[in-house]
Amino acid sequence: MNATEQFQDRLNQVAKDVEGLLDRLLGKTLAGDELARPPRLLDAMRYASLGAGKRFRPFLVVESANLFGVPREQSLMAGVALECVHCYSLVHDDLPAMDNDDLRRGQPTAHKAFDEATAILAGDALLTLAFGLLGEPDTHGDPFVRCELVTRLAHAAGHAGMVGGQMMDIAFEHASPGLPEITRLQRMKTAALITFSCESGAILGRASAAARNALSAYGQDLGLAFQIVDDLLDAEGDPARMGKAAGKDASRGKPTVVSILGTERARAQAEALAAQAAGHLDLFDERADLLRAAADFVVSRRA
Amino acid sequence: MNATEQFQDRLNQVAKDVEGLLDRLLGKTLAGDELARPPRLLDAMRYASLGAGKRFRPFLVVESANLFGVPREQSLMAGVALECVHCYSLVHDDLPAMDNDDLRRGQPTAHKAFDEATAILAGDALLTLAFGLLGEPDTHGDPFVRCELVTRLAHAAGHAGMVGGQMMDIAFEHASPGLPEITRLQRMKTAALITFSCESGAILGRASAAARNALSAYGQDLGLAFQIVDDLLDAEGDPARMGKAAGKDASRGKPTVVSILGTERARAQAEALAAQAAGHLDLFDERADLLRAAADFVVSRRA
Repeated sequence: MNATEQFQDRLNQVAKDVEGLLDRLLGKTLAGDELARPPRLLDAMRYASLGAGKRFRPFLVVESANLFGVPREQSLMAGVALECVHCYSLVHDDLPAMDNDDLRRGQPTAHKAFDEATAILAGDALLTLAFGLLGEPDTHGDPFVRCELVTRLAHAAGHAGMVGGQMMDIAFEHASPGLPEITRLQRMKTAALITFSCESGAILGRASAAARNALSAYGQDLGLAFQIVDDLLDAEGDPARMGKAAGKDASRGKPTVVSILGTERARAQAEALAAQAAGHLDLFDERADLLRAAADFVVSRRA
Repeated sequence: MNATEQFQDRLNQVAKDVEGLLDRLLGKTLAGDELARPPRLLDAMRYASLGAGKRFRPFLVVESANLFGVPREQSLMAGVALECVHCYSLVHDDLPAMDNDDLRRGQPTAHKAFDEATAILAGDALLTLAFGLLGEPDTHGDPFVRCELVTRLAHAAGHAGMVGGQMMDIAFEHASPGLPEITRLQRMKTAALITFSCESGAILGRASAAARNALSAYGQDLGLAFQIVDDLLDAEGDPARMGKAAGKDASRGKPTVVSILGTERARAQAEALAAQAAGHLDLFDERADLLRAAADFVVSRRA
């Protein structure tokens, strides 16, 4: 197996494990608590989180944690928590009041398959569940580590991170931001959670400050590259393969790195960022080859 | 000062302290991070959380914690986190896709003052902030205690608690639930967070299981009484005094304890629950007089 095949193999394995764990968590949680179950809410949470998704963030958690010998069942639990945050953000971003999208991963978006109220509440519940999972002893035996995960996730996902980035994204539909503003938005909207995915591996592994900083820097460059490729796919991509509409940014007049630099320079920029991301991993030598392959994947993906 | 006056005095003091702390947290957080600030989001978070509200949940945290000698600055921090959860739930519940309310605390609801997208995101950010605060060492020096707060809040506020209750509330607008179903809904929608407010005082104070169970039982009865009085105020109340529309449940055909039992028996039921709540506090003798006064307040309030 070459590095790319090994990466795909490990990504698939993480996806399978995430699916199984999420299925268990979203089934079992209420099993002993039949009275407290509103089935429609649980159905919507399952709809929004199961059955699809690359599970790229959990992969980053698991492989970063693996550098420090963290047991896989712990890093998977943290990865599932991050995936819940990612899925909640997609559900809320797709709402009519936000991006008003009808398709996601080839299926109707949550508010289309259910209704708006259910989608809002399913998102709220997935976000809440994520923090609950990080606080549980299953995620790590040391409560100090769990608290660190909770506070860092709150920072990455909150008003100074992902939610703030989505807010800027909306504001920019009616403005003419330049490249620095767009980069700042993407650092918050997309890169903050990807950065935390990598950082959380270091937190779980009680890594040195140097190792943690290296993984954070890797995650930040990777996240920016990821978003540029997302925008390239939107500009050039094939809706059938992507499972969602394409050309949305242009039709909304939404400025992106692609609309400012053009596709060729934007792709070069994504490739430079991915190379820069991989460069932060030098201190891990060949142990980080899977993370290096992940950087290649980010710029070569077609969906 | 009699017990009622003392209660009002302490409630006012908590409200003042919560206001100051929230103002600081929602101002300062981004002060050193000017680039990362979307001012409109922060404005909406402040709008949704500052300037009004009885701050009854923080009061319950502070006074429950006080039974165990917890430093006030710690219980206030936990109380502010719970208030953020309460405020987020109001913002999302008021949305057009949910209860579609225009007024809250005498002011336009958040989506009226801003817009729907901003209201959804401000709610998301307040919920995220709440977990972040509970994870911080300022809330308690022992990370085990902080993790306990995080996981218990996730349970109380998530799909098996508050969010699940809101989901049932929506479902019941098109159904004919009986008293047991309505009680179950109110246990989740309202009582879960009020119960956790009381329980969190015990968690902060590393109380015995007996003391913690007593406070949970108190909180649960108190929460159910609180919701019945809310429904009574909706049925009979004065919109000007309440700062929100009245008669909403009836106009939506929404079944409540009041619509099923009638106002007289519903009031008797609330009073019985409040008395039962106070009864759980016997093991704290006169140290719990403020919490007993809180039970009186819940059934005598007019807004």
